[in-house]
Amino acid sequence: MTSTLYTIDTPAAVIDLPRAMKNIARMQDRMNALGVAFRPHVKTSKCEQVVRAQLDAGAQGITVSTLKEAERFFASGITDILYAVGMAPHRLPQALALRRRGCALTIITDSVGSAMEIAGFGRSHGERLPVLVEVDTDGHRSGLDPYGDELLKVASVLHEGGMELKGVMTHAGSSYELNTPEALSALAEQERAGCVAAAERLRAAGLPCPVVSVGSTPTALSARELRGVTEVRAGVYVFFDLVMHNVGVCAMHDIALGVLTTVIGHQREKGWAIVDAGWMAMSRDAGTAKQQRDYKYGQVCGVDGAPMAGYLLGGANQEHGIVVREGDADTDIVARFPIGTRLRILPNHACATGAQFEKYQALSADGSLREWSRFHGW
Amino acid sequence: MTSTLYTIDTPAAVIDLPRAMKNIARMQDRMNALGVAFRPHVKTSKCEQVVRAQLDAGAQGITVSTLKEAERFFASGITDILYAVGMAPHRLPQALALRRRGCALTIITDSVGSAMEIAGFGRSHGERLPVLVEVDTDGHRSGLDPYGDELLKVASVLHEGGMELKGVMTHAGSSYELNTPEALSALAEQERAGCVAAAERLRAAGLPCPVVSVGSTPTALSARELRGVTEVRAGVYVFFDLVMHNVGVCAMHDIALGVLTTVIGHQREKGWAIVDAGWMAMSRDAGTAKQQRDYKYGQVCGVDGAPMAGYLLGGANQEHGIVVREGDADTDIVARFPIGTRLRILPNHACATGAQFEKYQALSADGSLREWSRFHGW
Repeated sequence: MTSTLYTIDTPAAVIDLPRAMKNIARMQDRMNALGVAFRPHVKTSKCEQVVRAQLDAGAQGITVSTLKEAERFFASGITDILYAVGMAPHRLPQALALRRRGCALTIITDSVGSAMEIAGFGRSHGERLPVLVEVDTDGHRSGLDPYGDELLKVASVLHEGGMELKGVMTHAGSSYELNTPEALSALAEQERAGCVAAAERLRAAGLPCPVVSVGSTPTALSARELRGVTEVRAGVYVFFDLVMHNVGVCAMHDIALGVLTTVIGHQREKGWAIVDAGWMAMSRDAGTAKQQRDYKYGQVCGVDGAPMAGYLLGGANQEHGIVVREGDADTDIVARFPIGTRLRILPNHACATGAQFEKYQALSADGSLREWSRFHGW
Repeated sequence: MTSTLYTIDTPAAVIDLPRAMKNIARMQDRMNALGVAFRPHVKTSKCEQVVRAQLDAGAQGITVSTLKEAERFFASGITDILYAVGMAPHRLPQALALRRRGCALTIITDSVGSAMEIAGFGRSHGERLPVLVEVDTDGHRSGLDPYGDELLKVASVLHEGGMELKGVMTHAGSSYELNTPEALSALAEQERAGCVAAAERLRAAGLPCPVVSVGSTPTALSARELRGVTEVRAGVYVFFDLVMHNVGVCAMHDIALGVLTTVIGHQREKGWAIVDAGWMAMSRDAGTAKQQRDYKYGQVCGVDGAPMAGYLLGGANQEHGIVVREGDADTDIVARFPIGTRLRILPNHACATGAQFEKYQALSADGSLREWSRFHGW
């Protein structure tokens, strides 16, 4: 029997393939037009088939958030990998082992202390480790001031310590907090300008800086030009989600990840339908709660993926979700969604929701499904 | 080389075994004193060794939130299993298959429609399925009014349909919203009284009702007496967490699950230490945000598990956490937590945090570690 959305077990993480392929093409086309290489962040999908589609579309290498991702994707034949989380010294042996097996792994740092650990480790093992220096262009997390002294110090420690100083990278993660094209374009320019300035300071100091790497999904989709940038990184664009919809970089019908769920009960007086997608399926991400439109735990859609206006996953326990109508209780909820009814819930945050599942159900335009495995953990 | 908290990779989910064993003994002793059977909910740990310790302490059977849990624990030799989520009709074949392999699986329902599906399926397969009817004693989620007509209808459909009507069950999940012993004891009594009343109504109608099953961690630890109850279910007590600490049913030093993390960077001016436990490790659960004490993404402890007053995991991205001091920024953060420093973070919600990991590191009193695998997914 062929699997369909009506026969598979629930909850299930469904990838709407036509939407995902459109998202992949949209980003790659944009990067091609802007004249930069694109290095997708695979932390969103952690799925070989999804990443293969990104590479087939023209991506050059991948970005990972854990060395486990590096291990898995290297095992699947991908060699050009950027590990974009500040290098913890205790992970250097694992990074070295990957490189010795043929993985062109690049690591990052944003401190003199860490740079010294990297250089010391690399020298003592006869390995010229490729390193990017992380700069902070929006104050949201890690990275060095592109205009500060420490940037040059860190770069010098790496270069003089015999490592391969590849350049600079930044991630304007505060773009998730914006919601107008003007603000997004301005932040994209700030991200570009800060990272390019850091690169120019390195070059002015006689240091190599071939790579200038920037990106987040919102800024990648909002940059007007990327002069001086060599590559862009983005992750969640492949699926999009309700947070990205609120940010304004995708339409609701671009969201390619949904959780298929089954109605298992009701509270008629309250207008509740109880479904088998709780927070274990959706994740606890409430990313839209602080945005202009709060979708609670997700937007309810029919099995066909069409949003049902006003119906949200209003609450979630571990394996129970509560479907509600906003505003007034739907007293016809039992007739509307009888036990056994299947729904698709669009998530707040695709990276978090996907991570709750061991596999995706990849849905083709003809309604057929294929199981695509994904991994989790470290 | 023996693994220690200083040598294993991070992030890691550490179970403090002396604490967990004390939590297990505390609950079992309480249930023994109250004269009821105890059926732990294994959705918290999804770990064979943890559940074995619960059974060794005196638990009688287990509660599961998914049929995958039933499959896994049945494979490990446990036969007495209650699947405590309303039965979706499409899952009946899987439940039947488990029973045919020797699993004494009990299922639940809270609607006439679902009860008819169960009875029809059972009859057509010649299987007298054991079923509990779920009642709602606090309005927080699923279940029938213990005083309403539907309760008797559902029970009759099952009994007259040839199924094994085992009794009634309830879960006062709204106990998570309380924080005084008085309110908790009152809710425990409400949970007991409502469920016992439902049982008495069934019996008065000539229906069998041998099982009266109640429970949640806060009510189980707060009930003054459990007259008429035959068994109690609870899950999170095995590890406890910051939400339970705010509810008032455990001390901070009872929390047995922590996430071991490594400092990977800083933002000195802001007083931030960046660690490698982001929301992928902690989960996105912000359960304490609406309680009297908001721990953000978790309470920071030393490697020894001792809380560091005022230090919280203030923010989290996928693989980055931001350790902050509440109130004023800690301008000595770089010296206090140098790169490579290891910390343990107590989580808001142990069920959600544990689910982010493929394995636990079970820490004995002597500092030695054992890997205990856990599963996820459906």
